[in-house]
Amino acid sequence: MTRDLTIAEIRLTPVLVADAPLLNVQGVHQPYTPRLIVEIVTADGITGLGETYGDTQYLEPARRLAEQLTGRSVMDVNGMFALDLGVDAARLEAGVDAGGLRGRQSADKVRLSVLSAFEVACLDAQGKALGLPVHALLGGKVRDAVEYSAYLFYKWAAHPAGVAAEPDDWGAALDPAGVVAQARQLKERYGFTSFKLKGGVFPPDEEIAAVRALAEAFPGHPLRLDPNGAWSVATSLKVAEELADVLEYLEDPTLGTPAMAEVSAGTRVPLATNMCVTTFGEIQEAFTRDAVQVVLSDHHYWGGLRNTQHLAAICAAFGVGVSMHSNTHLGISLAAMTQVAATVPNLHHACDSHYPWQSEDVLSERPVFTGGRVAVSDAPGLGVALDRDALARLHRRWAEDDGALRERDDAAAMRAGEPGWRTPVLPRW
Amino acid sequence: MTRDLTIAEIRLTPVLVADAPLLNVQGVHQPYTPRLIVEIVTADGITGLGETYGDTQYLEPARRLAEQLTGRSVMDVNGMFALDLGVDAARLEAGVDAGGLRGRQSADKVRLSVLSAFEVACLDAQGKALGLPVHALLGGKVRDAVEYSAYLFYKWAAHPAGVAAEPDDWGAALDPAGVVAQARQLKERYGFTSFKLKGGVFPPDEEIAAVRALAEAFPGHPLRLDPNGAWSVATSLKVAEELADVLEYLEDPTLGTPAMAEVSAGTRVPLATNMCVTTFGEIQEAFTRDAVQVVLSDHHYWGGLRNTQHLAAICAAFGVGVSMHSNTHLGISLAAMTQVAATVPNLHHACDSHYPWQSEDVLSERPVFTGGRVAVSDAPGLGVALDRDALARLHRRWAEDDGALRERDDAAAMRAGEPGWRTPVLPRW
Repeated sequence: MTRDLTIAEIRLTPVLVADAPLLNVQGVHQPYTPRLIVEIVTADGITGLGETYGDTQYLEPARRLAEQLTGRSVMDVNGMFALDLGVDAARLEAGVDAGGLRGRQSADKVRLSVLSAFEVACLDAQGKALGLPVHALLGGKVRDAVEYSAYLFYKWAAHPAGVAAEPDDWGAALDPAGVVAQARQLKERYGFTSFKLKGGVFPPDEEIAAVRALAEAFPGHPLRLDPNGAWSVATSLKVAEELADVLEYLEDPTLGTPAMAEVSAGTRVPLATNMCVTTFGEIQEAFTRDAVQVVLSDHHYWGGLRNTQHLAAICAAFGVGVSMHSNTHLGISLAAMTQVAATVPNLHHACDSHYPWQSEDVLSERPVFTGGRVAVSDAPGLGVALDRDALARLHRRWAEDDGALRERDDAAAMRAGEPGWRTPVLPRW
Repeated sequence: MTRDLTIAEIRLTPVLVADAPLLNVQGVHQPYTPRLIVEIVTADGITGLGETYGDTQYLEPARRLAEQLTGRSVMDVNGMFALDLGVDAARLEAGVDAGGLRGRQSADKVRLSVLSAFEVACLDAQGKALGLPVHALLGGKVRDAVEYSAYLFYKWAAHPAGVAAEPDDWGAALDPAGVVAQARQLKERYGFTSFKLKGGVFPPDEEIAAVRALAEAFPGHPLRLDPNGAWSVATSLKVAEELADVLEYLEDPTLGTPAMAEVSAGTRVPLATNMCVTTFGEIQEAFTRDAVQVVLSDHHYWGGLRNTQHLAAICAAFGVGVSMHSNTHLGISLAAMTQVAATVPNLHHACDSHYPWQSEDVLSERPVFTGGRVAVSDAPGLGVALDRDALARLHRRWAEDDGALRERDDAAAMRAGEPGWRTPVLPRW
């Protein structure tokens, strides 16, 4: 072989991506969300793509990693996990993460979130150089399409007046009828057959009513509710009891493994999490206490696609289910999620994806949902291509921002519509 | 890319390999041990090599797998794990394995032992086709050489008179002085700096004396003792107490997770196992009960190199150490062990290998131990090449055998030297 797999250059491009006014327990999505696009270029001029969180705290570790990777082989993925990214542990351990929705902040999680984009970019470059899809580099796909669920949100019709934002045509969803209408739209456009409602926004009775309305509108369809830890153990048990007949699982009803274990012991509704099990170090306690029955993997914060496979193997060994979490992301990450999901034998639940809410992307062609599924690409690498104009445009938005949007802060965004809003102390109900 | 990665042909070659008269709790190694050599040939004529157990029970499932794989892609490794190999679960579940030394027999373990050889052969073929070492296909090496320990055995000078066998120059080792002499030989020839003694052969006091003699002869060198479950909990605790100051770990002192957990709770000596944790299904109970502190992975019965990586990730998440088990094997498997071991970050103990005891191989060039280490090959695939004459010779031995040696039976081999020997009921002491 004459090809040269040495990393010649790495380009890091922070962008701001339009986001709809989606509500959660912390507040509302900003009109623009920061993401970081990673391009790893080999000596042969092959470019691999990766994507991760774009808040400022991820940028400096990404730059340190990029410097160290230049000159190494794009095949040397395991080795990069031992590199020092200079993540300031002391400053982070006490804090919460940018979105406040992915569990305990930690230096390890920031480090792995950065590494994930580089691992994916390396795999994309490998695949392109070798003429193989990423799934083949991960042992091969065991399915030809990956199922996703419709991600329903309570939602304003628009970002508050006076706030710069892109418009959307989804309308408001602030009650059961609005949630059902949104579900119908998502089902019509993308063919989803299971539904997840982001809860923690309204008092539990209103959210129970919304799930009931969904169950009535879509009988037999798997339903999930995720209040992001907004409830006490008692409230969680009450909601679980009331929705036991219709829920596929209840996601992070309450915060922390001890409380989740208490809820788990008191209900037959399976509990899922992307908040109390978000790193390998959190698995032992949660699994030993049977606190969760489904782990929502997320290749961003678990550190890439191979770690996602490891996580799935751990879940299989402990009889815990696997599904997939999603935060605001672009098509690069959707392609990466789809490639790894295709290789996980024990993926028995539809994955989450925010992607339908993203009207903008940096790709020349958007991945497509058909029948609620994304076909697993057999093209080399991730099977996606960059639209450089789009990337430049979204980067310009980031570069011209005065800093207000560079750190995702759903509470600050909420104050634009509800002055005086403060991040609720959890459990709220 | 113009290359064709379709599997065009699979050759299965059972062989009988010379083995020294090494003693264990079951009896003595047969003079010849069955192994199965797997060759997977792509449409482009690239051949990938794999190796596994060669007892009859593995041959029929291997044939069934080979038939189903022909026409599939050599990249499609995950998919083969869903194929039906027709392993007769009912017949197996009640039995013990061929060597009696690898824990509970199960259909799953037989199935995975067969699959492992095909997975390795696929990876070897992939690497050769892509011009990459197997470790690169597994994410890349994190070390340039893999450390092995000297595998010490109580040993007869020769197989019993009248038994056809190859001679060896190691001499007898039946007491502490013999064990120390053998350790010196292994250290001199291969540079090993840690030592494992296969125990369960003599009453515990004699084996304690042998380990003490090793500790005196090689001060500060890591030592291990492995009686293959020969002892009761009380005896295990007594041995652990007496050797606590010199043992790196005690391996399978007693049988089964409950008994191991009892020993573990009563000693500060770490316990290792390749008998009570041998499948993913056995992990949960053992880890939850803290029955073992080190798992000895074995890519043969865990189902290949990717599963070995998954196992290591599970161990890391639960704070359990990882090392590597070995049964009689040839250079193909040593190369495979070395490739995967090179990728496992949390491999902090020297691996076991029987290989120094194998005077015969099917390779044109034997892997080499230097300073107790095997260098991680960066050549395409596993970095080994078949000696077709040697393969034919060892296969002829198998073909001409009347069936007496085709099932490894250490107790039967023992009866040739000690008429009336019966497999001891465990715990023996």
